Amino acid sequence: MVLPVCDSEQRLVGIITADDIFEIISEEIYEDYALMQGVVPSEKSYLETSFMTLAKKRIIWLLFLMLSATVTGGIIERYESILSTAVALTVFIPMLMDSGGNSGSQSSTLIIQSLALDELDFSDCLRVVWKEFRVGLLVGMILALVNILRMILFTDTSLLVMMTVSVTLLITIVLAKLVGGILPLLAKKLKQDPAVMAGPLVTTIVNACALLIYFKVAQILIGL
Amino acid sequence: MVLPVCDSEQRLVGIITADDIFEIISEEIYEDYALMQGVVPSEKSYLETSFMTLAKKRIIWLLFLMLSATVTGGIIERYESILSTAVALTVFIPMLMDSGGNSGSQSSTLIIQSLALDELDFSDCLRVVWKEFRVGLLVGMILALVNILRMILFTDTSLLVMMTVSVTLLITIVLAKLVGGILPLLAKKLKQDPAVMAGPLVTTIVNACALLIYFKVAQILIGL
Repeated sequence: MVLPVCDSEQRLVGIITADDIFEIISEEIYEDYALMQGVVPSEKSYLETSFMTLAKKRIIWLLFLMLSATVTGGIIERYESILSTAVALTVFIPMLMDSGGNSGSQSSTLIIQSLALDELDFSDCLRVVWKEFRVGLLVGMILALVNILRMILFTDTSLLVMMTVSVTLLITIVLAKLVGGILPLLAKKLKQDPAVMAGPLVTTIVNACALLIYFKVAQILIGL
Repeated sequence: MVLPVCDSEQRLVGIITADDIFEIISEEIYEDYALMQGVVPSEKSYLETSFMTLAKKRIIWLLFLMLSATVTGGIIERYESILSTAVALTVFIPMLMDSGGNSGSQSSTLIIQSLALDELDFSDCLRVVWKEFRVGLLVGMILALVNILRMILFTDTSLLVMMTVSVTLLITIVLAKLVGGILPLLAKKLKQDPAVMAGPLVTTIVNACALLIYFKVAQILIGL
């Protein structure tokens, strides 16, 4: 398949081959995903790119993400008194943040992909919310149950800490699925690239929320 | 462009259109990235897929990642005494784990992409290591410096904690870049799909290493 390219007077000025089209399709998709992982896409191949260029393309997002982690740090600082009375709670912070972050990026990946393939639109927002809510509830309950079993079998976690962790896990997963589902749609509506806006933002928002929920639940259940 | 498909006696049994080829290319790439984000790829569109199916496609990786977070939890538990004497250290755990995880997935994304485009091979291993090492060193130093400034200006972190955090950040970033660079190449060498093996594994390995380095450096510098 070769497509002719003509000027305004119908004179042939060039051709577009099937190869050109294939290349553009795959490059566009790769660009989206590079952006989602916080890498500014490059025209050159990896081995051709100097380490300085690679570093430049990566540093912006890393700086942004490191500074946004100030938020999670600030939350921990604010509730330091809770952690110092119940150090056991610290053990579950990475698990809660990771599970939340992963749940969120699973959803945002799928929604960004569907947006790119034109299978979804902002008008489907409520359907996405309802679907992600149910997925989150089901997945969250299974994760919480497996985690309770793990804690009972392999750790000597107190009942109150187990309850705090489980309730937080369930709420965080549901919230992560909702944020991961809605944010790319919102980005599209605001005429921003969903891949750029949604990827790292989802993790940042979900991480902060996971911690806030954790400490709030701990205050209520353990009464600290 | 239409390609004929013939049987062994050269009779036409079907055709392959350009559309078929485009679809296969973009689906293959999307599949890779869905797997990297821990989602089992689907043939159907998002809205056509039931919430039960979506949940099923996501639960396996979430369970795997949650259980692998047992490792980070275990490391924190083992060094609980350090955290109870220096609760301030807890504040930086999410930042260190996130920065490490992100640095690692930036590298693995790029390497997986280069492998898919056949721009890289296992034989380029040493070149990748050398490039990622320098990128990590440069990026890590910039991040550490910006973070020191931030800590001095906006927090009242003690000098020893600042040093612990900075040294850990630098080592973690370099390590994350190396792990993110090597793991996909190793997966390819072992004839595994780099996207499946490298994505979630990089984060898990880097997170665990970040914590171990943090506590080791704290023991040496703060002398706990």
